[in-house]
Amino acid sequence: MSDNYRSMWASLGLDLEAHDVLLDVLGKAYQDIYLTQKKRPEGMGYFDFVMSEVHGLRIKELLDEKAAGRKVIGSYCVFVPEEIVLAANATLVGLCSGADFATEDVEKLLPRNTCALIKSSFGFKLGKVCPYLESADMIVGENTCDGKKKAYESFKDLVGNLYVMDLPQVKSEMGKALLRSEYNRFKAAVEVLTGVPVTADSLKTAIRTVNAKRAAIHRLSSLRKADPVPISGLDALLANQVFFYDNPARFTESVNKICDELEKRIHDKLGVFPEKTPRILVSGCPQAVPNWKLPMIVETVGAVIVAEESCVGERGTRNLTDDTGETVDEMMDAIVDRYFQVDCAIFTPNPDRLNHIRDMAADYKVDGVIHYGLQFCQPYLVEAIPVETALEKENIPCLRIETDYSMEDVGQLKTRVEAFVEQLR
Amino acid sequence: MSDNYRSMWASLGLDLEAHDVLLDVLGKAYQDIYLTQKKRPEGMGYFDFVMSEVHGLRIKELLDEKAAGRKVIGSYCVFVPEEIVLAANATLVGLCSGADFATEDVEKLLPRNTCALIKSSFGFKLGKVCPYLESADMIVGENTCDGKKKAYESFKDLVGNLYVMDLPQVKSEMGKALLRSEYNRFKAAVEVLTGVPVTADSLKTAIRTVNAKRAAIHRLSSLRKADPVPISGLDALLANQVFFYDNPARFTESVNKICDELEKRIHDKLGVFPEKTPRILVSGCPQAVPNWKLPMIVETVGAVIVAEESCVGERGTRNLTDDTGETVDEMMDAIVDRYFQVDCAIFTPNPDRLNHIRDMAADYKVDGVIHYGLQFCQPYLVEAIPVETALEKENIPCLRIETDYSMEDVGQLKTRVEAFVEQLR
Repeated sequence: MSDNYRSMWASLGLDLEAHDVLLDVLGKAYQDIYLTQKKRPEGMGYFDFVMSEVHGLRIKELLDEKAAGRKVIGSYCVFVPEEIVLAANATLVGLCSGADFATEDVEKLLPRNTCALIKSSFGFKLGKVCPYLESADMIVGENTCDGKKKAYESFKDLVGNLYVMDLPQVKSEMGKALLRSEYNRFKAAVEVLTGVPVTADSLKTAIRTVNAKRAAIHRLSSLRKADPVPISGLDALLANQVFFYDNPARFTESVNKICDELEKRIHDKLGVFPEKTPRILVSGCPQAVPNWKLPMIVETVGAVIVAEESCVGERGTRNLTDDTGETVDEMMDAIVDRYFQVDCAIFTPNPDRLNHIRDMAADYKVDGVIHYGLQFCQPYLVEAIPVETALEKENIPCLRIETDYSMEDVGQLKTRVEAFVEQLR
Repeated sequence: MSDNYRSMWASLGLDLEAHDVLLDVLGKAYQDIYLTQKKRPEGMGYFDFVMSEVHGLRIKELLDEKAAGRKVIGSYCVFVPEEIVLAANATLVGLCSGADFATEDVEKLLPRNTCALIKSSFGFKLGKVCPYLESADMIVGENTCDGKKKAYESFKDLVGNLYVMDLPQVKSEMGKALLRSEYNRFKAAVEVLTGVPVTADSLKTAIRTVNAKRAAIHRLSSLRKADPVPISGLDALLANQVFFYDNPARFTESVNKICDELEKRIHDKLGVFPEKTPRILVSGCPQAVPNWKLPMIVETVGAVIVAEESCVGERGTRNLTDDTGETVDEMMDAIVDRYFQVDCAIFTPNPDRLNHIRDMAADYKVDGVIHYGLQFCQPYLVEAIPVETALEKENIPCLRIETDYSMEDVGQLKTRVEAFVEQLR
């Protein structure tokens, strides 16, 4: 895609040479991991196109929106409510954080013992290779984990337009009041940025747009309950990843289209893997583009991923927002109600997450759970141990892995995952 | 001390054999590190005695108090307000977290990549070697860092009587309201435990008791501004550590007594090290008994520690509580005001801490700052980098170290500290 967009990238201040390297690696990885899969649904053609244009056409669309006076807001977390952003006539995009970049420079600003996701967000900025970040009129950070919370203090100096949202640590009344107050503050900040006040009408429309997107991806998820499963874990993860980048209406339409195809496959008993292939639930840290390491390993050793309990997966996309409110206030309450249910490991205690994993394991007829932890991600790594203990008590096999974005441990992981899958047969 | 107390320890459920090993190691370390120091103030005799009886006489005192109907509350953090505990007729003690113990068992419950302090608190419980923990009627955890916050979820099952206090992450109005609400909730819980309601009188007395203790240790700190410095960093750290264990009134008296002696030393120009010895400020993570590794290293390579910007040091002890309130409510507000100033790295942003380090560096005529970070302590390790950058811009040399409780890196640290001190001369 690079030829048509070089001047656009240059105008965003990207380092064209470094960016070429990134696109090259990304393209090769996509070719090797995605395009070599067999029996892919035809509807994945849309996502292949999106990925081939992820730094191209989509950025051009955002810049066209900006030229027409619309603002772009970038985020790193599912706690940033897209409903509010859309209602104030802005576009929300997820920011790059799925690959190592400029690591040497990053480690001048962050401890080496920082999780790969946080380091990556710094790397894409320092390496000048994230066109989403450079297109954003406002970048939203949030006080989730210690790593992100403290890292944003330095990130602020790198980007200049960082807005930090505070979040509760406990699901108490005070916690909910804090979330409400922070969403109000965010609404006001977005309104100032866009000059467009959020109205009851615009908020209702925005809630419906986001609900439709969540309902579509939830429909896709649900179809993975079938055996044989009609779509690979890799492809389903990709749809969940594109959720954060794409135009919401087009995304909804494209996901629903592939769902129609998957329903036909289920009816015809057509799967991407044979019936009785060991079924895996992946639970834990988010997997951002192009972090496809774990599903690539799992699905090349004879198992299939049928669900993701993750921010890039059901943790982030389940639960719709009540759209019956009449006033902005009522709908803001509904938004708070919806997001307050997100069972991120930053909350203490966090029993909903274990319950959700249990439910998903049953619903998706899972043979085993792989707990995916990013090294140095304390909330998920600490929580992984009681989660594993609880699941094993209920005879749900669990494998805890801890990794980063490098490819150095692929061989070792493959051996461990292979042995785990073997015991599930 | 062990012979007289064996039945007491057995009654607390300690593992006597493991506890003997601990006391043996502790005693030898104290002998080697503390008792070999030269020109120690006579007043340190009191602290030597306290340390020799830290698991003996002090525990007997606590058990005598308990027999007389008083409750003992244990804590791991300077955010737990002793004023409220004393006002409800209970005793607050710091709980053991300064040494590795039962590491293999600990790592079944916590990730290996957890800081030594958190692992230690689990180790003392699993190894059954902390008489303070076993004497406590209530153990207070707090949502400070991710590591502690998530670890308490498992710790709860080990101890049975854990109370968890939520804390804000931002010094906003909402943050202060949360602290106020949590201190109210804590007061109510302590009142239920003791059956003694907090009154205006008892709270005023408690505030004054704790203020006197803080004023005494602050007086001790201030005397270290002299050159030659009249007390070693090791001895001053010990007094700061005993702050968490001792009877408050007796502690205050003993510290004031040693201060009288130090004033005389200053008048006579008597120091523990020669004049012009390089003066170090240690800033960062808390150093709990018997974590004397860093000061031992610093003070054997020809420098002296003149101040600690730490929870076991000025961060924890500075700022008195306004005692002029007439009602419980007014004094609770004053307590919140006082604790809300604690500049722990869990807060974001946390500019007060850097300002405090700057002020201390000037006040104590510091030649260099050593930032002490516990490995995997994300809040302090992330904050260390901008702190170092800011200090070096102001020509205050800074050395960032990252370590744990093991002795394996002593040689390596010594080399680094020695080189740092050399450049300060």
